[in-house]
Amino acid sequence: MRIAIIGTGNVGSALGTRWKQRGHAVVFGSRDPSSSKVQKLVAATGANAASIRDAVADARVVVLATPWDATQGSIAAAGDLTGKILLDATNPLQNMKLAYGLTTSGAEKVASWAGGAAVVKAFNSTGAGNMLIPDYAGQKPTMFICGDDAAAKQVVSGLTEEIGFEAVDAGALTLARYLEPLAGLWIALAYAQGLGPNIAFKLLRR
Amino acid sequence: MRIAIIGTGNVGSALGTRWKQRGHAVVFGSRDPSSSKVQKLVAATGANAASIRDAVADARVVVLATPWDATQGSIAAAGDLTGKILLDATNPLQNMKLAYGLTTSGAEKVASWAGGAAVVKAFNSTGAGNMLIPDYAGQKPTMFICGDDAAAKQVVSGLTEEIGFEAVDAGALTLARYLEPLAGLWIALAYAQGLGPNIAFKLLRR
Repeated sequence: MRIAIIGTGNVGSALGTRWKQRGHAVVFGSRDPSSSKVQKLVAATGANAASIRDAVADARVVVLATPWDATQGSIAAAGDLTGKILLDATNPLQNMKLAYGLTTSGAEKVASWAGGAAVVKAFNSTGAGNMLIPDYAGQKPTMFICGDDAAAKQVVSGLTEEIGFEAVDAGALTLARYLEPLAGLWIALAYAQGLGPNIAFKLLRR
Repeated sequence: MRIAIIGTGNVGSALGTRWKQRGHAVVFGSRDPSSSKVQKLVAATGANAASIRDAVADARVVVLATPWDATQGSIAAAGDLTGKILLDATNPLQNMKLAYGLTTSGAEKVASWAGGAAVVKAFNSTGAGNMLIPDYAGQKPTMFICGDDAAAKQVVSGLTEEIGFEAVDAGALTLARYLEPLAGLWIALAYAQGLGPNIAFKLLRR
């Protein structure tokens, strides 16, 4: 599958690395694809890099892994996203606090900016280290996803399970109002509470 | 420990049952302690029942397990809560949606209504069935708690672990802004998504 990843920070790098390893055609979209940072990532992963617009052009799945304040601009730079699956891994954090919630969410903002795309929230509620190694003594962490397009969720769910998570569908895109606070909880536990980033949520069932 | 439980629904009944089994002095506080519903609970658990004010009077820990719209009135009926630990197991749900969030929380409302009490949010993000049997093939679910009083959190943490959960301190009472959406997620998964109530969150560590 052709996957464009917008954002070359920890999360974008981790997801690109994993999906490239799984044989997907991964291209990092960047405002500056020839920068040494992006070229190092290309060399390390074997993925390609291009402008955001070129990266997105032929991609079936576009992964948003941008800092919140770069998100709207990156979507604008991507051009027409009609018919594409937009995997929103962002969180609307400003000064480490959620800027949206309760009656809306970052994901709903993203959907409003990305007309025609099928937005699926995923990979926002865990750390990049877990994306690289989603293994806890043989137990898989759970990745909660949500979105309004069932077929798009199925694709994202498959990509999620391919790299070692258990995917759990939490419902409509409005459920991002719960999944973004879950990211807030993860961050608070890892950093403010000092548990460190080797923690992950799992949904137990019986 | 003397524990008053305000609310005789599923959550209050489950917590009262468990702590009574553990040897604590449990008293259910009710507007109508002689009702057949409360008396059945007394007969089933061996706990006592009294008016809310009498139940609370000598309790070290007061558990709020009320429907949201009865919460403020129940706190008012309790009288002086100065120096007591107020374990807030409620969620500010109206029509199954959170009425507060992002910039405040039900727990912060509770604290504003219960002057002098040390409010600890706990037992809001799982179902009553898990409180009765917190066992998933030998794995303990995690109970996230938060509050501003470290000593009070230690007491609640102990009570939480006594009945089979792993307690994890998420931080200050403002963290309820994340723990109440976690309840929203649990409810959505159990009911809207049809997974049923035999699900629980666990924090994996490595």
